[in-house]
Formats: sequence, C-alpha cells, structure tokens
Amino acid sequence: MRATVMYRAGDVRVENVADQTVVNPTDALIRISRACICGSDLWPYKELAPVDRGRRMGHEAVGVVEAVGKQVRRVKRGDVVVMPFAYSDGTCEFCHEGLQTSCVHGGFFGVGDVGGAQAEALRVPLADGTLFPLPVGEDDALMPSLLTLSDVMGTGHHAAKAARVGRGKTAAVIGDGAVGLCGVIAAKRLGAERIIVLGRHPDRIALARDFGATDVVSERGDAAVARVRELTGGHGAHSVLECVGSEQAMVTAMAIARPGGAVGRVGVPHYEATPASQPAFYSNVTVSGGPAPVRAYIGELLPDILEGRIQPGRVFDRVVGLDGVPDGYRAMNERKALKVMVKP
Amino acid sequence: MRATVMYRAGDVRVENVADQTVVNPTDALIRISRACICGSDLWPYKELAPVDRGRRMGHEAVGVVEAVGKQVRRVKRGDVVVMPFAYSDGTCEFCHEGLQTSCVHGGFFGVGDVGGAQAEALRVPLADGTLFPLPVGEDDALMPSLLTLSDVMGTGHHAAKAARVGRGKTAAVIGDGAVGLCGVIAAKRLGAERIIVLGRHPDRIALARDFGATDVVSERGDAAVARVRELTGGHGAHSVLECVGSEQAMVTAMAIARPGGAVGRVGVPHYEATPASQPAFYSNVTVSGGPAPVRAYIGELLPDILEGRIQPGRVFDRVVGLDGVPDGYRAMNERKALKVMVKP
Repeated sequence: MRATVMYRAGDVRVENVADQTVVNPTDALIRISRACICGSDLWPYKELAPVDRGRRMGHEAVGVVEAVGKQVRRVKRGDVVVMPFAYSDGTCEFCHEGLQTSCVHGGFFGVGDVGGAQAEALRVPLADGTLFPLPVGEDDALMPSLLTLSDVMGTGHHAAKAARVGRGKTAAVIGDGAVGLCGVIAAKRLGAERIIVLGRHPDRIALARDFGATDVVSERGDAAVARVRELTGGHGAHSVLECVGSEQAMVTAMAIARPGGAVGRVGVPHYEATPASQPAFYSNVTVSGGPAPVRAYIGELLPDILEGRIQPGRVFDRVVGLDGVPDGYRAMNERKALKVMVKP
Repeated sequence: MRATVMYRAGDVRVENVADQTVVNPTDALIRISRACICGSDLWPYKELAPVDRGRRMGHEAVGVVEAVGKQVRRVKRGDVVVMPFAYSDGTCEFCHEGLQTSCVHGGFFGVGDVGGAQAEALRVPLADGTLFPLPVGEDDALMPSLLTLSDVMGTGHHAAKAARVGRGKTAAVIGDGAVGLCGVIAAKRLGAERIIVLGRHPDRIALARDFGATDVVSERGDAAVARVRELTGGHGAHSVLECVGSEQAMVTAMAIARPGGAVGRVGVPHYEATPASQPAFYSNVTVSGGPAPVRAYIGELLPDILEGRIQPGRVFDRVVGLDGVPDGYRAMNERKALKVMVKP
C-alpha cells in the first residue's frame, strides 16, 4: 500500500510501504476514504530533524472499516467512520470524563508503530473507543464537513469551550487558519454575540464573515491589542480562542482577554512559557485548553452538520490524490491553500 | 494618628502621621478595630527597595465607621464593617460580575494617597461599594473569623473556585500559610472528598487537619509531585490551590494537577513565566485565579462564620497592638507566627 512519509523538514514522500493489518484484537483496519493535511503537520514540515525511517503522516480521516479484531464490538466491516486524531479506549476514567486525549491507553497517529492517515489504509487501535460510525455513505455531499469532525471542527469547538464562550459574550479568535475558522463557527454556535477574528488573508476573512465573524482585526502585536480594546469598550474580549500556537499569538491572546475572561488555546505551543503576572494573574484571566478531545464532541456537532446548520467543510479549498500530497504540503506551507483534502 | 510605614526591606516603623479624614464625597473614615499582617506584606518586607516617604502598610481590617462623605448611602456612622483588601465602586460592570478587584474605579490600599490599615484610622474610598456592614458588635467573639473575610478566607475561597473544587473531587492545597489553611476550609466547604495539603510546619498541618485536610505531603519539588501522584492513583488532583506564589510552588501545582484539572492560583506571582507546553497544554490543565474579589464572597461566607460552621479565625496565633507591629512582621517572616492580628 501507499502512505505518506516525512523524512525531514520539507521532505515529504508518498511511498510503497508494508500493508496495514489488524494486529491487536481491539484494532480495526480502515480504508481511507478522505484524509487531510493539518496545520499542525506544517510544524514538522518546517522543523523536523532528519528521521532515518521517516515519520508516517496524517491524523484526520473518514474511512470505511475493512476488518476488525476479535474484541471489536461497536464498529463492523463496511461502516463509514470518523477517525479522531487521537485513539482512545472509551472506557477509562478520562474517556468517561470526555477527555479522550488523556486516555490511559490512548495515543496519537504517526507515533511509534501506529501509522498515518495520509495513506491508502490504516490500522486504528482501540477501534471501539476511537471510531465514530456515520449514518451516511462515503460519498455523501456532506463528507467535507463530516471530515472536519476528525480534528479542526472539534478543535475549534474545544477552543470555544475552553474560552467559555456563551450567549451574548464577545469572542476573539486568533488565527484565520482552518481551526480559527472552525473556532468562529463554534463561537457563533455557542451564542457569542460578537466575534472578532484576528487575521489578514482576504479569502479566509471572507469565509470567517460567512461563518459569523462580526469584526476583523488585521493588525498584529500591540496594534492588534489596541484595536481589539477599541472594539470592546477598552476592556477586551470575554473569550479568546488561540488557534495558532506561536508565542506572539499567545501573548496577544492574553492581552486581549477582558479581566475575568478566558483564553482557550488549541494551537500546539511553539513557545516555552507564558507570562506569569501581567496580564493573566492581575486580571484573573483563565488560560485553558490543549489537545481537543474531538471524540467527545462528535455526538454534539454531528446533527448540526447533517441538518446543514454549520458547514465547516468549506475550509477545504483543495483536493489532491495521494500523489498530490507533497504539493499539498507545499501549498499549505506557502499559504496558497487553506486546507487540503486527500482522496487516496 | 499612628500608622505603619515601611521604608525598605526589614524597616517597618509605627509613626505619627497626619490624621486621615474624609476627602471625597464617596469616602468613609473608619477607626480600625482589628487589622492584620498579611503573608503578601512579607514580600516587601523581604525585598522593598528604599522608599523616601515610605509605604503605608495593611489592607485587611474590621473597623467602625466614624464619618462618611455626602454621597455615601449604604454605610453610616457607627457601623461595624469588613474592609476588603481592594476598594471598588460596586456599580461598574466588573463589580456587577463579581470581579471587584478589576473595578474600573477601584484600587488597593497603601497605594498612592490611599493609606494602610495597620493604623488607628483609615480613609476608605468608594465606601458604598467597598465596605460590608456586619450584624455584630466590634468585640464579638467571632471577630477573628470575621476579620478573615477582608482577605485570607475570601482568597482561599477564590483559589478553590478557580481550581473548580466540587463535590467528591480531590483537591491539593499548596502552602500551609493562612491562605492555604483557608483554602483547606474552602475546599471542604465546597465538597471536596479528599484534601491533600502540601506543607511542613507541624502546628499548621495540625490546623489543616482540623479544617478538613485528609492527607499531608511534606516533601517538596519532584518528591512532592511523586507523592501526590501516589496518593491519587497516579493521575494527580482535580483541583490544585496554589497559595504561595513562588516559582517552585507554581511548577509543582501544574505538575500535580490531573489531566483536565485546574490550578487556582492566588499567591502573588514571584516568578516571570509559567511553562507553556508540559504539563499544562498536553494535559488540558486550566490555570486560573488572581487577586480575589473578596468583596463578592462575603455574603456567601458570612453565614457559615456566624453559624459556626467554619472558623477561619483560628489562623491567628498572635495579637499585637500597633507598637507590636514591627515585631509581628519579624515573627511572621521568621515563621514564628502564622498570622498576626493587630488591635490598634
């Protein structure tokens, strides 16, 4: 079978690799129907030190179950399933609490002997806890939006929850990438009255406005902070969704939070530390968030997609086959594509 | 009148100063009935660079109203009042949200032309929003506990709220000072099933156990983290109350929080930054807290004191007159006293 392997920064290849198979009795083997290139894949694309055997890439997918291990009960051959970016047993105390990304038996795709989703097929550990069967066929018109349940829509929702978005509140969303745009959808869905998006790419900003953004701040750094304050009566936003992961984004996020407000961060932190005192402590700003337990959110978000109330699939602006994956990385890295869908 | 003035680290004096008076129409003048020396006063006592005119000290008090400005409506001459450590107008949007420490017209005692409470009398700005009249006389037997409503009990409660203590949860309290001990009371009051206190002073630990602590960890640093993990099935505490403010305390706090848990920090941060990625981000640990809006909590906590359900006044283990204030600082700094009450 063919799969995407990254060998070092900038070196992504699609190669013939050993077929994936069911190994453990709790595994499922899925044929990848749709996968994605993720903004977080761009971090190794920029920075990865040389890896001898390469790193398998891809952690977002919708697939069709081809085989299951003996102990798998909840999914069966032929099911069309969403595969969240982390696998989880569904039974441990953290899974019961809805924090599947801290599952005591769980883990992440592309790590150790677990493969990646930018491939023809993939072994999914702990299939019963991980996979979410969909009530539609694999070529359903809603497939782009359903695919976002594997990561970006759930991650945007997590940012909004961590930032305590609520009815009538003002939310600020830092970042106009796919997660930021899904954060706008999530903030709107949770009742935010005003949604300020911080970004500067005209096409993405246009989409943000379609999704419910009411204000746009294209400045950065101190100028962005001043502009958000100006838009919010001097005080800042109740809820800030940090959807980038850079130090500047995080510093801005903390600075534009209103006293007593909250920052929900979902951008994988590419910074060492956050300022301790000002503004967070003295203004009682809460900092929350982390890897989104997207598995926990599928049940809540799915009806809104099936019934057309939200359309997160609009973040995809390019579709490639497996051969096109290296070009897809390049396009996303050069910001020529917002989010790339892979149809193996 | 006499008041406490600090000129530099270690140099605290009780001096004759100009009488305090009503200046603004929203002021009240109170005669100080009881004041305190606060753990946070020990930071300048250790570190204050020389100040020409000195800094007025003290921000916790119960007093008797002697005079009020023309616009004061809610408090009147003769009222026995709790004075929270921050003054606030009671009418701005932050006060309405219960975050009086971010009041747009508020501020802190001992700053600018606002005096301190370790004195015979004090001008209290924004008296209507700030002062809380008590239904008892100034020599009531409950006065030590009522006095803690001006800071430490409300601050311990704030730590517990920020750490999301709830029924059946495990709480860890870092610090066995007065705030930490009040944090134990607060955690118990909010329903924590298990309360682990991190501290090493036998008399304070004994009090913590009286207040509801179920486990004691006297180790520090990595050993403390290991011990808390051992006590909590390997995962850490749902809620961590950081009641110290040192870097080590904060690093420990984040390390002993369970995935998905929360750290409520109320120790004034004497550190520059908190680690960004591990453990907070990857374990979805929330960091919250700041200066406690104790004014907001008096109404909730007062009945429990009046009806004897909580006894935070037990944190006072020494009473001094104004002349004894410098000795009081010394005793607290040398940890010979837990918390000193001042009776001018």
